Formats: sequence, C-alpha cells, structure tokens
Amino acid sequence: MIRVGILGATGYTGLELLRILKNHPSVRITYLSSKSFVGKSMTEVYPHSLEETTLEDIDVERLKKECDVVFMALHAGLSYEIARELPNLKIVDLGADFRFDDPQVYEKWYGKKLEGYDPEGRVYGLPEIHREKIRNARIVGNPGCYPTSVILALAPLLREGLVEERVFVVDSKSGVSGAGRKESLEYMFSEVNENLKPYSVIFHRHVPEMEQELSKISGRDVKVVFTPHLVPMTRGILSTIYVKTSESVEKIHELYVGFYEKEPFVHVLPLGVYPSAKWCYGSNHAFIGMQKDERTSTLVLTCAIDNLVKGASGQAVQNMNIMFGIDETVGLEHKPIYP
Amino acid sequence: MIRVGILGATGYTGLELLRILKNHPSVRITYLSSKSFVGKSMTEVYPHSLEETTLEDIDVERLKKECDVVFMALHAGLSYEIARELPNLKIVDLGADFRFDDPQVYEKWYGKKLEGYDPEGRVYGLPEIHREKIRNARIVGNPGCYPTSVILALAPLLREGLVEERVFVVDSKSGVSGAGRKESLEYMFSEVNENLKPYSVIFHRHVPEMEQELSKISGRDVKVVFTPHLVPMTRGILSTIYVKTSESVEKIHELYVGFYEKEPFVHVLPLGVYPSAKWCYGSNHAFIGMQKDERTSTLVLTCAIDNLVKGASGQAVQNMNIMFGIDETVGLEHKPIYP
Amino acid sequence: MIRVGILGATGYTGLELLRILKNHPSVRITYLSSKSFVGKSMTEVYPHSLEETTLEDIDVERLKKECDVVFMALHAGLSYEIARELPNLKIVDLGADFRFDDPQVYEKWYGKKLEGYDPEGRVYGLPEIHREKIRNARIVGNPGCYPTSVILALAPLLREGLVEERVFVVDSKSGVSGAGRKESLEYMFSEVNENLKPYSVIFHRHVPEMEQELSKISGRDVKVVFTPHLVPMTRGILSTIYVKTSESVEKIHELYVGFYEKEPFVHVLPLGVYPSAKWCYGSNHAFIGMQKDERTSTLVLTCAIDNLVKGASGQAVQNMNIMFGIDETVGLEHKPIYP
Amino acid sequence: MIRVGILGATGYTGLELLRILKNHPSVRITYLSSKSFVGKSMTEVYPHSLEETTLEDIDVERLKKECDVVFMALHAGLSYEIARELPNLKIVDLGADFRFDDPQVYEKWYGKKLEGYDPEGRVYGLPEIHREKIRNARIVGNPGCYPTSVILALAPLLREGLVEERVFVVDSKSGVSGAGRKESLEYMFSEVNENLKPYSVIFHRHVPEMEQELSKISGRDVKVVFTPHLVPMTRGILSTIYVKTSESVEKIHELYVGFYEKEPFVHVLPLGVYPSAKWCYGSNHAFIGMQKDERTSTLVLTCAIDNLVKGASGQAVQNMNIMFGIDETVGLEHKPIYP
Repeated sequence: MIRVGILGATGYTGLELLRILKNHPSVRITYLSSKSFVGKSMTEVYPHSLEETTLEDIDVERLKKECDVVFMALHAGLSYEIARELPNLKIVDLGADFRFDDPQVYEKWYGKKLEGYDPEGRVYGLPEIHREKIRNARIVGNPGCYPTSVILALAPLLREGLVEERVFVVDSKSGVSGAGRKESLEYMFSEVNENLKPYSVIFHRHVPEMEQELSKISGRDVKVVFTPHLVPMTRGILSTIYVKTSESVEKIHELYVGFYEKEPFVHVLPLGVYPSAKWCYGSNHAFIGMQKDERTSTLVLTCAIDNLVKGASGQAVQNMNIMFGIDETVGLEHKPIYP
Repeated sequence: MIRVGILGATGYTGLELLRILKNHPSVRITYLSSKSFVGKSMTEVYPHSLEETTLEDIDVERLKKECDVVFMALHAGLSYEIARELPNLKIVDLGADFRFDDPQVYEKWYGKKLEGYDPEGRVYGLPEIHREKIRNARIVGNPGCYPTSVILALAPLLREGLVEERVFVVDSKSGVSGAGRKESLEYMFSEVNENLKPYSVIFHRHVPEMEQELSKISGRDVKVVFTPHLVPMTRGILSTIYVKTSESVEKIHELYVGFYEKEPFVHVLPLGVYPSAKWCYGSNHAFIGMQKDERTSTLVLTCAIDNLVKGASGQAVQNMNIMFGIDETVGLEHKPIYP
Repeated sequence: MIRVGILGATGYTGLELLRILKNHPSVRITYLSSKSFVGKSMTEVYPHSLEETTLEDIDVERLKKECDVVFMALHAGLSYEIARELPNLKIVDLGADFRFDDPQVYEKWYGKKLEGYDPEGRVYGLPEIHREKIRNARIVGNPGCYPTSVILALAPLLREGLVEERVFVVDSKSGVSGAGRKESLEYMFSEVNENLKPYSVIFHRHVPEMEQELSKISGRDVKVVFTPHLVPMTRGILSTIYVKTSESVEKIHELYVGFYEKEPFVHVLPLGVYPSAKWCYGSNHAFIGMQKDERTSTLVLTCAIDNLVKGASGQAVQNMNIMFGIDETVGLEHKPIYP
Repeated sequence: MIRVGILGATGYTGLELLRILKNHPSVRITYLSSKSFVGKSMTEVYPHSLEETTLEDIDVERLKKECDVVFMALHAGLSYEIARELPNLKIVDLGADFRFDDPQVYEKWYGKKLEGYDPEGRVYGLPEIHREKIRNARIVGNPGCYPTSVILALAPLLREGLVEERVFVVDSKSGVSGAGRKESLEYMFSEVNENLKPYSVIFHRHVPEMEQELSKISGRDVKVVFTPHLVPMTRGILSTIYVKTSESVEKIHELYVGFYEKEPFVHVLPLGVYPSAKWCYGSNHAFIGMQKDERTSTLVLTCAIDNLVKGASGQAVQNMNIMFGIDETVGLEHKPIYP
C-alpha cells in the first residue's frame, strides 16, 4: 500500500484528492493537513465526506515517517519550502511551484523567489506529453487547469509542425470552483449566477505555463493570447483555440485520432461533434472537437475537462500512478456523472 | 459474473445504472435497450459514456438467454407486461408497476390495469425497511425518489410509535432530473432557471406509495399532505417533514442514531446540523437532520438524497446486490462529488 | 420633488432602491451613503448602475437639510440610532429596528437594546394590512421578506377566522440575495449552486415578526413552525403554508379573490394554478395559489414574491408613496422580467 | 398614441416587447397574435404578465386598421410574406427576413426565397450605425443578438481603419433564452445546467449578417471566424473579439469613448474593467471593455448585452422610437436589474 499524505485537504482540490484516493485500491491515506481546521475531523468540516480522520498541522518529521508520497494543495511558495524538507518523499504539487523550467518566470508571475530551484529535479506532470519523465520523477509539478485543456488540444498539431503562425488565440471558460474555496465577493452566488465575465485578460498566470510547454512541443517560441472567462457553473473548463493552418480538417482530425489513440483519458470526437463541459463531470476524461473555416484557413479546436479532476486532482493521481508503476487508470475508472 | 440487461438505457435512470454498473466488479452488462435510439451505440447518444454497446429493441427471448437480472426504466405498464414474459429472471423495476400491495391503488393513480397482479410475488425495494424480503425476492419494485427520502426520515419514529397524529405534512423539493429526459416546455432551462415552483400539490402520484409504506411501518392508517416543488438544480431531493410528538428531540435523535447505526447509506447528522442536497451528489448516501419546536410540539425532519442514485438507480443496484447475496455496498462505494 | 436619501446604498436592497427610485417621477435622490465605499462613485462600485453620485459617510446634519425621506438599509441597531437624530424626517427602515410592537422581543432576537423605543411612533409597513396607519406614519418598519410572503398568504383566512388551529407550518424557500452582499463561505457560488438546504430551522429571526402580525390579524395568539431553505437562485421567495380548516377551498378562494380585489400588487391565481418565483422577478407583485387535501382538512397556501422588491425595496417605495400621498404604484409599474 | 401590434407575442422576444411597451407612454398595444394560443388571453399563457388581452390569429385586414406599427417575431419567411400585405404600415421585424442587402445571402443561409425583395426598401436596424436611415425607414430589419454585440464592439475600430487584418476571431457566449421558447432536448434544464458547449462552430447564421455590416463599415470585405457557445444562464451575451492592430490600447480606448460619447445605450468601460453579462440584465444597455497583448499586437474587445433587450426587443423599441421621431430612450430608461 502506498501511504499518502494530502496537505491542504479542505480546499476543493484536496477534498477531490480524498474522494478519488478513498477508492484507490493501492492507497492508504495516512495524513491530512488543513491550516484552517487543525484538530477537527473531515466530517466536521464536510459532513458528506464521511471521513473521520483528524486534520493536522503540517509536521515534516511525521510526514517523513508516515508517507510515501505527499500531495500538496498549498499557497504559492509554501509547497516549495515544505518539499525541500522532504528530500526522500515523492511529491505531487498541485500548485505552480514546480511547473516552471525557469524559476525567474515563476518569480515574475507569482512574486516569490524559489531559492536553489533545480529545474532538472522535477517534471511538468502532463502524462500525455511527459509520461516517461514522470515515471522516474520524484517531484511532479501538476499542470494548471487551463494549460491542461490547451496543451492537450494543441499538442498533436504542434508536434507535427502543421501550424504557420506562432501566436494562438485561446478563449477559455471556467466554472467557479477553479477559484478555490475562499471567501470573496467576486465569487458569491448572487454575483456569479446568471452572469458571465472575462477576467485577467491577457495577463493570467497560466499564460507563461502554456507558452513554456507549447514552445517545447513545437520546438520554437510560441505566444498565447489568453482570455479566461468565469461561467456560472461549479465545475468544468472549455477552451476554444484559434489557429491558422493550411492543412485540411480531415487530415488534422486523423492526426489527432492517431495521437490520442492509446490514451485512456483523452478522446477525439468525430468531426462535427463538439465537447460539452458536463461530459467530463467528476471524471478524468478530456474531449476534443474541431472545425475549420476554410475561407480564412482558421482551425477551431475545443477541449473540455473537469477543472478539479483532469485539471487538478485526477491528473495528480494519474501522475502518482505513473510514478509508482501502477496502471495509470487505477482509481480513475469512473465515468462522468450525467446529467 | 451477473449478466445484466438495462431496458430504457438512454433515460436518465438508465444512464445512471450504466455508470454505476460499469464499475461493479461482479457485473457484466449484456443488453441495453432504448426505444428511441435502436441501432445506435451509446456513444452516439451520449459521447461522454464511452460505451460502444449498440442499443437494441426489447427482445424477450434474447433477454431470457443473455441476462440473469433485468433493470427496467420504462413507461408505466410496460415493465409489468415485459416482466410477465420473463418468469425466471430477476427483475428490478425502477417504475411504479411493482410498488403497490393493492393493484387498484396503482390503477387509480396510474390509469392502467395490471392483469393478474400478485402482490406476494414482488417486494417494495427499500432495503433499510424490507431487506430480508428483498433477499428472497425475484421481482423488486424500486421505490420512487420522494418516497425514499420521506420513508427513511419517518421510519424510526413510526416504528417506535412516537407520533400522536396520523397526518404528516411533507414539503419536498426536487432537482429537475426527476422529470426524466423528455422534451417539455415546463422543464426548459429558461423556464426553470432562477425559478422555483410547487406542482401537483396534494395530488402527486407518490402520495399513495408513501401512505402504503408509512401505514405498514406504523401499523395503522396514516395520511400524507404532500407538496413537491421544482428547484433549479439538476440532482437532489430534500424533504422537510412536520410531525407532532411529545418526545424530546434528544431522545428522538438517539433513536435515529441507533436505528441507522449499521446502515451503510443512511447517516443521521448531529443535532443542529441539517442536510444539504449536494452532500449526496452522485452517491447512494442519505442524510437526515432534525429540530423541534417545543412550543408547538412539532418535530421537523429533513432528509436529503440524490434522486437519481438513492432515489433510483443506486438503490436499484443496492437491491440487486441483496438479491444476489453480494455485499450491499459493492459498486456503490463512491463518495459524493463536492463541490 | 421628494428629496430622498439612501443609507447603505451599496448593499443589494440599497442598490435596488436606487434602481426603482431613479425612475420615480416625484423623487430626486440627494444622498447615498455607504460605509465601505466612502468617496467612490456608484459606477466605481457597480459600473452597471450608470450613477455618478459619490458615496458618502452618514452625516446627520446634511441628511436633515438635504432629504425629506430617508431609506435605511443598515445593520441592526444602527437605523434606530440614526433615526433618533432625525426627528423631523420621514423614515423607511428596511431592517428590523422598527418592526416590533414590543422592544423586548426585538432585544431577545436581535441582541440589541432600543433605548426609549416608542411602539406608537412607528408602523409595520405592510400596506395591504396597515395602509391607513402608514399614511400618517413618520417612521415605517419595512417588513422582512419571509413575513411579507407569509402574512399576505394568511391574512384573509385569519381575518375571517376560518382557521381552527393556532399553529401554522410555514415552509419557505429563498434565493440567495436575501443573505445580502457580504463575503461568506456559505454563500459562495460553488457551495450554493446545484445545492439546497434548510437553515435556522425553527429559530429564524422572522418567526417573532410573523407571529406578531398574524396574532394581531387573527385576534388571538398564533404560533409559526418555520423552516427556511436556501435555493440556488438569486431572487425570489416561495412560501408554502399548511393550515387546518373545515372551509371548502372554493369558498376560501372566493374570499381571497375578494380580499385582494383592489390591491395593485397582490394577485390570487385561479384554482389549480400555483405561483412560480420567477413570475415576480424584478417586480413588486405577489402571487397566491392554494389547494386543499379534503381527507385531512389541510389547506396548502403558496405565495411568491421577489425578495428584493415586494420583500424589501419595492415595498419600501410603496410605503413612501403612501406616506407622501402619491399613487401607490408610482415607480413600481413595471412587470416582472421573464424569462 | 402609436397603435402597436405584436405578431408572435408568446415567444420570448414577443413577451419582452410587451413588457417594454406596456410602460411606453406613447404606445397603445392593439393587437397580439400567437399561432399556438389563439383565443387564450396572455394571462392564461403567462400569469405573470397580468395582461388580459386575447391572443389572435394574424388578420392582415385588421392589422391595417388597428395598427400604426407592427413588430414581427415570426418564423423565417413568414414576416416577409405578411409585410408584403401591409404596404402602408411601419414594420420592425425581429427575424432575419429584412436584415440582408443581398437576398441570395439570405436564401443561402435561411433556405427561403424572398420574391421581389427590395434591399432599398428596408434598413438594418442598428441605431448606433444606421440611425439616419432608420429615421426614414418604413421597414427595419432588427439585428440578431450576436451581431449587435459584435458590430458595436468593432465599429469604431473599423470606421477608423485601425485594423490590419481582414479576419476577426469572434468567440461569443450566450444565455439559453436566445434559442427561443420551443421544446427541445438540447435546451432542457438538466442538459444545460452545469454545462457549457460550443455549437454551430464556423457555420452559424449570424456570420453573413456580421460580415455584411462589418464590411460596410470598414469599406472592404472582412471575414468573421465565429464560435458561439451556450452558457448556463437565461439572459446575456458576451462576445470576445480578437483583432490585430498596431495602435496602442490607450489610443483605441480614447477613440471608443469618443465614438460612443453621445450614445445613451453604449458604454465604454475604463481600461482594465471588463463587462459582465449581468450588468445588462433586463436593460437596453451595452458595455464594452478592452485589453491588448502588446507582444502579439492583439487587441481583445469584449462586449456584453442582454440578448432579449439590446439583442432583440429593446433595440426594436429603440428603432420604433427613431422611426416615429420620439426620443430614443423612451420606454427604455430602466437600469439593469442587479443582482
């Protein structure tokens, strides 16, 4: 049994990790931390969790003794600090501390310095792209929710070099749970319900993350023009991406089908079918659809995921499975809940 | 392996059966029927299902050969007809055809005659009340969604005879998926969203079902004053029940905790905590809370379930497990999805 | 022109007052206060308001000079304090400070003392019940949202003495805007959406307010068993009320039609039609429907309002109109927005 | 008084016209038609409308006698036929029959021939662009909802010729009421709620309408790459538009502020503020925000409207006001409802 600790267990991604891992046959949860609820049990915070484990403060010495792997769902910078004190544990960090190849990019966007950061000592945890590296990684930086949907949608095209331009327009729409569980006027029900708005236009923190990975895949510098939108739903991300290409949509579709043929969690839809965010609800699956405006040589790619599963905790478990040599789908077999 | 057929697989309860049973380790799905989509695969109707099985018409001879148990999610009267042609199969009917002890009550409320109906040949499938009978039943009439929430909330009180009156006020609120998957102006998004309304006040079809079961538990005739409401959410039922009793709420709470102590799916909340519909999302769990107005000797009971799981397909699988001597929770271990 | 001040203009009821009063032909808004946003303009806080007026602190001397009437949407106790310093202005208080005949009831439920409270110096502002008194009042305590829906639904029955029992079961459902505009985990979108829950069961602050008014109407002490529920919608309240009566529903319906015949904002629906919360959206209208369970002599009354209009700011303007001898419907002529 | 007929009064845009026109001081509604509900009163179909007028079939002779202007909210092709029989009435058509300069474009996209269509005999009814022509028009083709939001957002830029490319990426998101009031599985609550999806990618009928108007404004042929999305809300459209330009965002913002300075319904937000769909709820106002990615010279324009008001019925009344020489804002003064 893999002994698992979850740091930040009462946030939404922590709670989702708990939900998934409770049904993982090779896992035993040994440690749950929560800054805000130390000493309480999970059922006191979330009666629906039916989980009596007591929430604790983060105690590095105990983590060393009681865990084989630690999932971190913590504030920017804190994961890095704690990880440094756990040099022998496997770590999957759901924040951004281990996502960047260049710590200066992180510093610029997250306003924190990562002293002694070693880019080689961690892997960007998108299994469909970096599976082999993840297999041998001790530390995985789990991708952001938006980047997951965007990189999956663009990877086949970029790897094949079928794109002329180096600028991609990415228009993403997200449910509100992506903002996490924190009090904020902006995310109050009465403000979000029957509403829809763009935010952090151009300057969202996920831009450098997307550009890093898309540039590596395409082998040249690419830029992303990114507009995220807040949609009145709890879960789900849908990204719509606009790319110039002279390739026919039939050929591109064929390429995508081949590229993801053996992937258990990425599904290329038939031409003419577009993904719905709800098709992913509560599951680790991603769906990709496409269409092309032949007049303007513009390809429209759409990709849907559940931001808390493939966009966070499900992908983190997928990464753990790979790191421990377990079948990648274990604990993640469940189909989306519909309707 | 239990060979399972689902008749009416493309309705919401059929789809939910498929979702649950695909992860049931002792089940192999051998037959999916759908009147509206014969010849199509499930993925064509529901791409998210990732299920390639072709949908078929109902062929009794094939069902006999290919199934050990058949789940029926069909129109009133049709289940009964088909069941008569399957005298050797186990059957879990998610409709009302097998719920009633008295076929004349069914006829009055559903407008259909059940020729040769044998009340002894079937069981009302609420496991927490009729577990032993279900164990030996060939045909189970799976309870309605509202009755499940109401009977679970009242059973301990009625069994102990702690109620003075014989009339219970039941005010229930349901998500829209309870209306099934059919085109209807009434259930269009723009009509339901940011809306809330009572419907079928006093005269809902679930009244006689509740009265039948509550009367049996209390050993005397009881009546239910029932107002269902449509709430702008997809899943979930919350029933709020008003009962006169001279017993203290502490004593009643203690009784409930004891009554449901060994039940895997029914949870009595601490005094002062009330259930939220979302605590059940996608799971077979039910939560019960209570409070009392001492001035008027009125006890308020509240019970939340997911109408498509404990209120339909989850309970149906729970019944199947009991009928086949499998542990009751198999395939139903998953925690609610939150948020 | 009536010179109007709104204290607490950036809360939801303050904002709604502004929306309504901007189109009131006899009103000029001269003062907007907001504790949190002093010095900012309304457009900075709410760009959609298109209102350039600067928000100010509460300055009693300026209020005396610049206003004929002041609407107060403030914290409990603060309205009372400020009102004492404005002995010559007309006041409509949207909080609870002036709702009670007995200041000790207020003190018990709101935890504040109202020094020198004079029950005769103010009126409970439900126009359909207290119109004549409001006409001559200087201070009006605008009713709570739940009480408005409940008193309107019960008044005809109680005034005619057609009820046997003195205990009414009231099951109310409200949209989230009733909780006001404040940061709170409980009202975050991800917690409320696709959810439904009871809260403050039996012990909600609106109970004594309902009992005060219902007792006065019926001429004897009555009690309310009250369960409010939070529904995933922004606006709207629907109250469902259960009453024992031997009178026929036809006769009661006739009584209601007569009782509200000349009321511009209260509409008794035909028998068999029940109100939808959305029928009131953004308007001052209330709709009442009813049904009876003859077997148990239980009458079910249902009443829908928009909690921010008839349940708060619309009713406040209706009261102002009466206090100033203007036609009651001025500024409130608009129909509900649907869908 | 202007005598007004509404054809198709029970659809959502018809109902919205009724709501707006009931408070228009210069209008008397004399004729309401509804194919589905002939002989019923509006209150029977929509109790909230409080409108007793009986719904009638379309009788051309009576329209001639009883109306000065007719609003048409009918199926494609039908408006054109009826309009031909009303050669002396003013007409505002909310469908597409009179939107196109070239009837062959209409025929291609709507599959109907418009015999004897005279492009000069009608005007495309976007007041901010064609106000002078509308003033003298007898027939106005009221713009589609998406085109309204897109043309308003692009017009200043195109008129000034500040755009290099001739291809615009338009990513729009709409509430469900845009689909109208018709039974359809696709728009059922349980299918739309907690969901989000693109549809009619590239090939939506509003593409030729946008291209016609944008080409005229820019004085050269432009193309639109268009992806509409269905969002789980009832009302509201937000369009996000991507344009290459070398002009600075400050200069463009200044241009926009000037362009819309005197417009009563179009508001350019301060730089850094983006529109929310809900800011328009129930009102005729439009809000525009912008940002620029300097690295890629990409300007992001965002525009929000209420699809049923500025995107349909409100704009139709605005057009009527212009056609009759009334102040453009009459009947449309109301602020958005928030929250």
